[in-house]
Amino acid sequence: MPREITAFSNPLVKQTRLLREKRHRREAGQFLAEGLRILTEAREAGRLPATLFFSGDMAAHPLVTALVAETERAGGEAVLTTVDILSKLSGKDNPGAVLGVYEEFVTPLDHLDRSAAAIWLVAERLRDPGNLGTILRTADAVGAGGLILLDDSVDFFSVEAVRASMGALFTVPIARASAADFLVWLRTGPGQLVGLSLDTNQDYRAARYAAPIFLLTGNEAQGMPDALARACDLLVKIPMRGKADSLNAAVATAVMAYEVLAQLG
Amino acid sequence: MPREITAFSNPLVKQTRLLREKRHRREAGQFLAEGLRILTEAREAGRLPATLFFSGDMAAHPLVTALVAETERAGGEAVLTTVDILSKLSGKDNPGAVLGVYEEFVTPLDHLDRSAAAIWLVAERLRDPGNLGTILRTADAVGAGGLILLDDSVDFFSVEAVRASMGALFTVPIARASAADFLVWLRTGPGQLVGLSLDTNQDYRAARYAAPIFLLTGNEAQGMPDALARACDLLVKIPMRGKADSLNAAVATAVMAYEVLAQLG
Repeated sequence: MPREITAFSNPLVKQTRLLREKRHRREAGQFLAEGLRILTEAREAGRLPATLFFSGDMAAHPLVTALVAETERAGGEAVLTTVDILSKLSGKDNPGAVLGVYEEFVTPLDHLDRSAAAIWLVAERLRDPGNLGTILRTADAVGAGGLILLDDSVDFFSVEAVRASMGALFTVPIARASAADFLVWLRTGPGQLVGLSLDTNQDYRAARYAAPIFLLTGNEAQGMPDALARACDLLVKIPMRGKADSLNAAVATAVMAYEVLAQLG
Repeated sequence: MPREITAFSNPLVKQTRLLREKRHRREAGQFLAEGLRILTEAREAGRLPATLFFSGDMAAHPLVTALVAETERAGGEAVLTTVDILSKLSGKDNPGAVLGVYEEFVTPLDHLDRSAAAIWLVAERLRDPGNLGTILRTADAVGAGGLILLDDSVDFFSVEAVRASMGALFTVPIARASAADFLVWLRTGPGQLVGLSLDTNQDYRAARYAAPIFLLTGNEAQGMPDALARACDLLVKIPMRGKADSLNAAVATAVMAYEVLAQLG
């Protein structure tokens, strides 16, 4: 039976609002996701919130009632609240119908089964949460086995990353590792490490790929460090015909991933 | 000779700060761009700011001195200021070394020369400024003739769009039109209108493209209206193997544009 909260001063509202900040996410081991589409995607992937906020005017929507029922069945708490409080929690003028507090999760590198997929995405020191979410969405679309984030990458539980992922955060396994640990793990089995680079003449469409492929994208501003580039089995570049010297990192990752997908048939 | 402004209360500082809001941009016919890379890209494209703010600690940088000199030569004003004021103007804790106030510009549809490029990008009711900036960057990278924005699309002079474009805003011609006017203009000459859609079985790689190609991407949430889809010469889809049903709009545009580029050789 959902409890009802209508006061902004309610401690649970205050505590949930704090999860918009990285420091509080780390302390609580929890993060926020919002919107019926994303929470339904999460539910279908078997992830239910510890706390589910929903507004009265949407309470009869079948996707909302399904979320409420399954959250309570799984031992979570459903909270009936106002649009104004949802707006405060989500930081948006027009909040979604639902907002969930989820336990953070991460897949240890050695739990990834590289034989489970032909393509894996790897990003190094990714800075922009929108890029991270977009890359997760691409990972889902190309059927990648997962995303491996190297070194000091942006927090993938940030509100912006979760939003940009459109739910792919819940469906695509994510691992975090130092570049060094990743390379050690990679070489314990088969795997072609393919790096996107501006410092090569190898066109990405002329290259030949062999599964499992690990597609590596470097930092948005600097690209990848030389040592990591040298560790790649193959460096490829996407041609640029314009005046600027690079594509957006999430865009470049997707163009590459779809070329690999097409080659592998 | 640059004038110096160190007071937050200075009217020019206040007035410039207001350009972060769409209403004030419309009134003034001006917009903001920031950062040495973007302003240099603009300068190389022949666009100089009406007002250039730069901070003292970077004043000796050769790209800053070039911007100051050319801004003044073109009749603009260069303003030496503090990092704190640049931070206030840009809304970022770590502002770039320079920030420029530019006159808004737009290319009328009938000034576009369709024979000048093999690929043109068209976006319909685009909502997200980050997507817009990213699509401009892709337009630059694939050598597109320009970007045509249909109906009620996001303001491409917003701070977020300018930033995401990484300077491509200054190098890629942008036209705005209603879908109806665009279709009339399109059919006055050669041009294959290719729409990205989820409602077709035509794979984007199996399709055959003929220049000049107008690649049409619909609204992020809804795709394009049926009438516009029917007006396309060809509808194509990008395969999705995951649980979500769509790619980010800027990503899908880029994957398509690079396929077309490869086919045209």
